[in-house]
Amino acid sequence: LNSLVNRQWRLASRPSGQVSEENFRFVEEAVVGPSAGEALVRVKFVAFEPAMRGWLDDVKSYAPPVQIDEVMRASGVGEVIESNIDGVAVGDWVLGNFGWQEYVIVSAETHARTPLRRVPDGVAPQLMLSALGTTGLTAYFGMLEIGKPTAGDHVLITGAAGATGSIAGQIAKLKGAEKVIGIAGGPEKCSVLVEQLGFDVAIDYKSERVRRRLREECPNGVNVFFDNVGGQLLDDGLINMARNGRIVICGGISSYNDESVPPGPKYYMQLVARHLTMEGFLLFDYADKNEQALKDLGEWVQQGKIVHLEDIQSKIENAPKTFLRLFEGKNVGKQLLEI
Amino acid sequence: LNSLVNRQWRLASRPSGQVSEENFRFVEEAVVGPSAGEALVRVKFVAFEPAMRGWLDDVKSYAPPVQIDEVMRASGVGEVIESNIDGVAVGDWVLGNFGWQEYVIVSAETHARTPLRRVPDGVAPQLMLSALGTTGLTAYFGMLEIGKPTAGDHVLITGAAGATGSIAGQIAKLKGAEKVIGIAGGPEKCSVLVEQLGFDVAIDYKSERVRRRLREECPNGVNVFFDNVGGQLLDDGLINMARNGRIVICGGISSYNDESVPPGPKYYMQLVARHLTMEGFLLFDYADKNEQALKDLGEWVQQGKIVHLEDIQSKIENAPKTFLRLFEGKNVGKQLLEI
Repeated sequence: LNSLVNRQWRLASRPSGQVSEENFRFVEEAVVGPSAGEALVRVKFVAFEPAMRGWLDDVKSYAPPVQIDEVMRASGVGEVIESNIDGVAVGDWVLGNFGWQEYVIVSAETHARTPLRRVPDGVAPQLMLSALGTTGLTAYFGMLEIGKPTAGDHVLITGAAGATGSIAGQIAKLKGAEKVIGIAGGPEKCSVLVEQLGFDVAIDYKSERVRRRLREECPNGVNVFFDNVGGQLLDDGLINMARNGRIVICGGISSYNDESVPPGPKYYMQLVARHLTMEGFLLFDYADKNEQALKDLGEWVQQGKIVHLEDIQSKIENAPKTFLRLFEGKNVGKQLLEI
Repeated sequence: LNSLVNRQWRLASRPSGQVSEENFRFVEEAVVGPSAGEALVRVKFVAFEPAMRGWLDDVKSYAPPVQIDEVMRASGVGEVIESNIDGVAVGDWVLGNFGWQEYVIVSAETHARTPLRRVPDGVAPQLMLSALGTTGLTAYFGMLEIGKPTAGDHVLITGAAGATGSIAGQIAKLKGAEKVIGIAGGPEKCSVLVEQLGFDVAIDYKSERVRRRLREECPNGVNVFFDNVGGQLLDDGLINMARNGRIVICGGISSYNDESVPPGPKYYMQLVARHLTMEGFLLFDYADKNEQALKDLGEWVQQGKIVHLEDIQSKIENAPKTFLRLFEGKNVGKQLLEI
């Protein structure tokens, strides 16, 4: 095993504004180990999320920044190919914070702190990175704990063809929402929303007048607005809310690459006029409900009630390019890289 | 009575941006009536609120715009000096939508739709326009139904020397808030907050660095933020919130005179990072709880637990000037005009 070469991407520089491939550096190094108390995992899939952009900036946040020269942080799934850790067996498929690389050495201390999660039998490993992972959980908790759609509600999702948005919309539909409207960029994504995911309406923000379309589709207003995008689309939604509506702030991808903090939602005073609630969340706020959530999501996926879309690119060399797809609006469903 | 002259202010033109005295027209006209089914009220106090600025714009909102040539709308208290309405007696002190004028004729139809409310015996009439009126109710519901301060909380109020803010801060203190911080403009207002109203800390936004002061005063963050101002101060608060904090959007006086809708709170993504809730409200959302609220407020005022401040100007001629005081930051406590 000592002859294994690990190819990986490290953070080379912090982006100022738009992240680019040049911010990362490709490195090849020999795999050293695993030593006593360590396991070696061959990474199979790496996951990409818009929030990773925030880890590149040197600012305090819910997660510490990735350091310069550190392997770029990312969730992944892989197979244990050697193990000196009790309870971690060769051949196990496991989920962990593996980074943009082909191999990862996991120490018993790391495993004790944030355990490698075993992929359950019969589950495709990459599902743990999408519908049955943080993506599915984000959609689940945001929609059910904050959005709380009920029968008859009109529900609006921005970034609807993205990993979280596509699942959030389907959960709303499962809960009896009368009309689920997804906003996405381009006819291909819009067609996926309606044809494959069961959204009632798709609006293409690149070619349609969103504000007017929303007024037409929801003359009585939007009851639940699940926002992944921010910027102009957040304002378009705000101005179309129904009385007592709930706005779930899940993300704001439209501004993640801005050099300075852009203006906020200018129609926020709609909160007063229509008695709206706007609330954000992080996944670990609901850690105590993870088990039930994963059980529900697992059933829905198995029963075909939730269709999960994956956009799988390939080759470790393409990790930065794959990451950029998120901000170029190219991915449909969960952005993954198969190594 | 036919020789009575009614002096009044009518809306002459809609302000574009900053409202000014020129937007109003002073009119003298003979009092005609009261006829059968009408009562005549001599207005004693008129109340001023920032939200009245919104009624001058020709836009759909929770209240219809004041029309050009209409008497400027405003709450008032006055004495019934002649009455042909059952249940409305000469000598009664009553509260109603009287406008900027000395006399008002109230019809039985109007009285049936929105009844004149009798000022209870032993209550100073102008209290019905401040602590025991919409001002007190706004502070009460915003703080108790949305802010929900509990023992140990740090509570932040902007526009703290204003009518609503000054009461909201005292209610938070009554409910056991550990530290109530008021932001106001100028040393006089700041001194009133601490010396007369029992705020723990006052920050003068005109001379102090608000963001830094908040960080020093609340190293663990603000739990409840009651915002009357918007703009920069809303962002200063947002960036200093504690996890799971509640932001009550009560008003946004800093932008009421802006010609176009200004940028919104640029740090709204703090809602995600700290799991904050931001919620607005209108008074009539809580109409079913008015009775209990007025009972509580009455007791607190009577027992001296709530100090209510009134800024009383005089003469009907000064109505527009008095209105402008709100936006010039001149009033301390409830802005009233005694006629």
